[in-house]
Amino acid sequence: MSSIFTKIINGEIPCYKIAEDENYFAFLDINPLSKGHTLVIPKKEVDYIFDLEADVYTGLMNFSRMIATSIEKVIPCQRIGVMVFGLEVPHAHVHLIPINSPGDMNMGKEKLKLSSEEFQEISQKIQEQIVH
Amino acid sequence: MSSIFTKIINGEIPCYKIAEDENYFAFLDINPLSKGHTLVIPKKEVDYIFDLEADVYTGLMNFSRMIATSIEKVIPCQRIGVMVFGLEVPHAHVHLIPINSPGDMNMGKEKLKLSSEEFQEISQKIQEQIVH
Repeated sequence: MSSIFTKIINGEIPCYKIAEDENYFAFLDINPLSKGHTLVIPKKEVDYIFDLEADVYTGLMNFSRMIATSIEKVIPCQRIGVMVFGLEVPHAHVHLIPINSPGDMNMGKEKLKLSSEEFQEISQKIQEQIVH
Repeated sequence: MSSIFTKIINGEIPCYKIAEDENYFAFLDINPLSKGHTLVIPKKEVDYIFDLEADVYTGLMNFSRMIATSIEKVIPCQRIGVMVFGLEVPHAHVHLIPINSPGDMNMGKEKLKLSSEEFQEISQKIQEQIVH
């Protein structure tokens, strides 16, 4: 069965898309720790990030860097934190989280509730900064 | 003034070293979230990971992958989590954390207290797995 992320890539489940290319896909986390919290995934469905082929892994990290740079241009924050733990969805994904303190990356803390208009506005603003 | 990490690289401050090459250095976090918690840094002192030159950034992520693969061979865990927030030491560093649940990556939780013999044993075990 396809992972929920593969369904998002295929358009079977809607998302607030940030960017995609041939191999990677970025979209807003629907349960964000902060505004602009984004997930970056390889299109190839592999559970564990360190099981990705070397060039797919390197490409994922480079795509994540490009997305992080775009996020920080429009979301006020000290920097973009990076987190990969991946024990929930069996499809490797990089969390990019705008942060102002280390506590902002605590996955246990309460998630933001944003309206669909807010998600739409954030994804559009970040999209406008993407340079492929 | 040199960062505490540059002092570690230069041997001015002791550490439990895992591996180094021309550009990167890995050592055990002295306040670990779990046994085997490791920091990977570029030798070049740059505060923010996304300000690293593209090839230094890519090299850092590839070096981190090699270290993670070595850690998981000797530390019992579900996988190695990755975290970069970097609001404390102004020298980019990647946390590699053996985890069994997402809560294992909560930086706010109490750190392990290990003896110097335990740190020594862990670093040596991981070192033995390193393939340059």
